[in-house]
Formats: sequence, structure tokens, C-alpha cells
Amino acid sequence: MAKMGKKNWVIPDGYLPPKSSNNLESHESICILNLNKETANISLKFFFEDRNPIGGFQVKCQGQRTNHIRVDKLKNNNEEEVPKGTPYALKIESDQPVFVQLSRLDSTQKELALMTTMAWPLN
Amino acid sequence: MAKMGKKNWVIPDGYLPPKSSNNLESHESICILNLNKETANISLKFFFEDRNPIGGFQVKCQGQRTNHIRVDKLKNNNEEEVPKGTPYALKIESDQPVFVQLSRLDSTQKELALMTTMAWPLN
Amino acid sequence: MAKMGKKNWVIPDGYLPPKSSNNLESHESICILNLNKETANISLKFFFEDRNPIGGFQVKCQGQRTNHIRVDKLKNNNEEEVPKGTPYALKIESDQPVFVQLSRLDSTQKELALMTTMAWPLN
Amino acid sequence: MAKMGKKNWVIPDGYLPPKSSNNLESHESICILNLNKETANISLKFFFEDRNPIGGFQVKCQGQRTNHIRVDKLKNNNEEEVPKGTPYALKIESDQPVFVQLSRLDSTQKELALMTTMAWPLN
Repeated sequence: MAKMGKKNWVIPDGYLPPKSSNNLESHESICILNLNKETANISLKFFFEDRNPIGGFQVKCQGQRTNHIRVDKLKNNNEEEVPKGTPYALKIESDQPVFVQLSRLDSTQKELALMTTMAWPLN
Repeated sequence: MAKMGKKNWVIPDGYLPPKSSNNLESHESICILNLNKETANISLKFFFEDRNPIGGFQVKCQGQRTNHIRVDKLKNNNEEEVPKGTPYALKIESDQPVFVQLSRLDSTQKELALMTTMAWPLN
Repeated sequence: MAKMGKKNWVIPDGYLPPKSSNNLESHESICILNLNKETANISLKFFFEDRNPIGGFQVKCQGQRTNHIRVDKLKNNNEEEVPKGTPYALKIESDQPVFVQLSRLDSTQKELALMTTMAWPLN
Repeated sequence: MAKMGKKNWVIPDGYLPPKSSNNLESHESICILNLNKETANISLKFFFEDRNPIGGFQVKCQGQRTNHIRVDKLKNNNEEEVPKGTPYALKIESDQPVFVQLSRLDSTQKELALMTTMAWPLN
């Protein structure tokens, strides 16, 4: 059944709120589920409104494991981070079929807000 | 892989909350991802409960870019805006295959609320 | 393109919060988009955890219109309402292909919360 | 139409917030709809970031009924519970085709937050 996953996914609405409060940091999590035996090697690419995409963000998800990747803690192979307060979109490429969901926690204000969606499969 | 996008999408639940607070304006964002090389020319049409649909809202999303379109800032070719406090639904037509997600931020009250969903493909 | 809609949809998570505050009534909205020319005649059936389903809720959505149906205001042909504070699931049957999304606004507490999802197509 | 459901579903983003407030306990609900006549026997398996998956959580959903399963109240056949404050992913296996949606209520702070998504079908 693991092979029912997909290797390539997109998410059009990404955004890291620049403010946080109450010790709960505003963030987005890219949540991966890998039902295979083999580790999935995953590459993330971020698209913007007014500049070229940035790639080179490498993450892993072991077999039979999940990985809830914090976007605000990522660095690519040029030590670049994903900018805050900037609309982005996201492409996820994996060498193993996986399942992908994105969630955002926004604590700009004292009481947090949440949203989530499954990613959209490319193939 | 760009061709895995779709040219036509719908979203049944649209709504612009008439109130905002705390310097965070209530809004909806139509988030487009265009993985093609060519610019996508996008036409938006809004459907209502008790009046004819309104079209003529033209937006663009460059190739290899995202565009997070603020519905509350749109004007069509007759200078019409999308009314606030009025339930609507939405059709998105693009001349290039794209990916579409809609998110709403509601700051009617002091602490914001969020919701999001992928749009539904028509073809 | 209207024919790309579906006649039958389900939503597993329905719930009407029993409390509200701040003049914003907690509710769920079943949001229909009808891209056909003809009016869609829609029948709603509610499923519960510990009792038989209740049907007989009839609504309409005109052609080229949306209808954001407030679940808390529905009555069926036996004058029954959907109970509050009770988990339910929902089946939507339409004589025309339509598009369906469910959203919940919860104002149990002073600051509202939102969630939304596309319904799941049956055919 | 019941046979349009699926027997196997996944959800990549699961999380039980460790804190609650205001008498509304933070929780996740796995919402099942069973349109068949027969009871669905459902088995849940939880995947983690840094340990082996845990299975053996058995639930039922009668025919023509919904079951909104509280994850925080589950125990498996070894009396194990799903840990709080720990990212997880979820696989749902049913002997009957069903429909599945996951919702989270987070009351870490005084005002609650909500999110929801349909599960992703495996077959």
C-alpha cells in the first residue's frame, strides 16, 4: 500500500507569520508519512511572488516513520532560510512515495489559530 | 510536471468578513502556483445567492512564481469590487495549468481565525 | 464544465457547537455551487452515533448561484431540526451535479474558530 | 454508493496538544462515516518520528452510523495510549469501505482553534 503514496506534491499557500506570542512560535509544519521500508530523501523548493524559487532544502523521513518538518527551522545547502512575512508556495520531491499535509499555527495574537490541508499530488 | 495542474477550479465557500480588528484586515487569499515557464492569465468569476455572477476580474501569475491574490483588493474591468459580508462562490479560469488553494483570515474579533482548502478541479 | 460536479457527497465530521458568544452564532454552513442552468434540488441526510439517520431536509440551489446553507436553521418535512452538541455526519444528494464544501464557525468562546473542507464525492 | 468508500486511509499530521483550558479538552477526532449495512471493524496504527509504530487500537462503526473517535481516549490491546505533545501520523484500516476526516481542537490557550481535513485514501 505504501506505493499508493506520491513522489511529488505542491502546496500553493505557504506563509510564516513574522510575529508570535505566548511562547508558542508561529510556524508551518510539512508533515510527511513514509509507509515504505526505505528512508525517503526529500527535497523542498520554495516559490515566491517576485523572485526566483529557492531550492536545496534536504530532509529525510525514515521508513515507517513520520516527520513533521518545521519550515521556520529549515536551512538549505547555502545556509538560506525561508523568509518570514513573505507569501510562498512549495514543491516537495521525494525519492520514495509518501503522503504530505501542511499545517500552519499562527500565534500573531495571544490566542492561536490553526489551518491544515493535504498537499496536492503532481503525479 | 507543470502540466499536472488544472486550468479550471471552483471554491464553493467564499466570504469576506465585514469587520476587522488589531491591524490585521479580514480577508481571503486565492493562492496560485504556476510551475510553467509561461505567465498564466487568470480570470475570476464570483457567484452569489441572489444575483447574477460577476466576472471580469483579471489577474496574472508569472511562470515559476506564486501569487497570493487578496480578494478584498480586487477590481474588475467595470471597477466593481467583491462585496463584503456576502456569501459567494468562485470560479478560477487560467490559460495555463496551475494549482489553487483558498485561505480565509477572519479578524472580526480580537484574535484571528484561519481556514484553508485546496480548490476543486473542474477538468 | 458544470457536468464535472457530482450529485452525491459526504462529510464525516459535522457538529453544531451548543454555545455561542459575542453575537456570532456558532454554526456550520454547507456551501453549494451550481454551475448548471437548472435549479438543483438537494436532499440532506444526517447520520448519528447512536440513533437512526434523519432525512427529509430539502434545499434548493438555483442555476449559476451558490447557496450557503446554515445547518442550524434547517427543518425537515417533519419539522425536525439538527440537534446541537451532537456529533453527526452528512450525505448530500442533488439532482444536478454540484460542488460542496463544509465550514464550521465555533464561537463557544469569545474569539471565534474556523475550519473548512471540501466534501467527499460518492460517484 | 457505500462501496464508494475506501478501506484504508492515512493522515500525516496528528498531534494531541498537551495543554487545555476552559473545560474544553484539546483533542483530535477521527470521524468515520459508514454507509454500509454491516458494522465496520476498524484498526488504527500510529506512526512517530523516532520510534516504531504502535498498532492494536480497535474501534467499530455500526452500519448507517458515524463514529467521532476521540484519539485522546483510545487504548490499544496492551493498554497503551497515544502520547500527548508528540507528532504522529495515522493509518486507518477498515474491513468495510468508509469515509474518514480528522479534526483537531486546540484549547492550549483560552480561545480554541480548529482545523480539519479529509484523510487520504490508500486504495
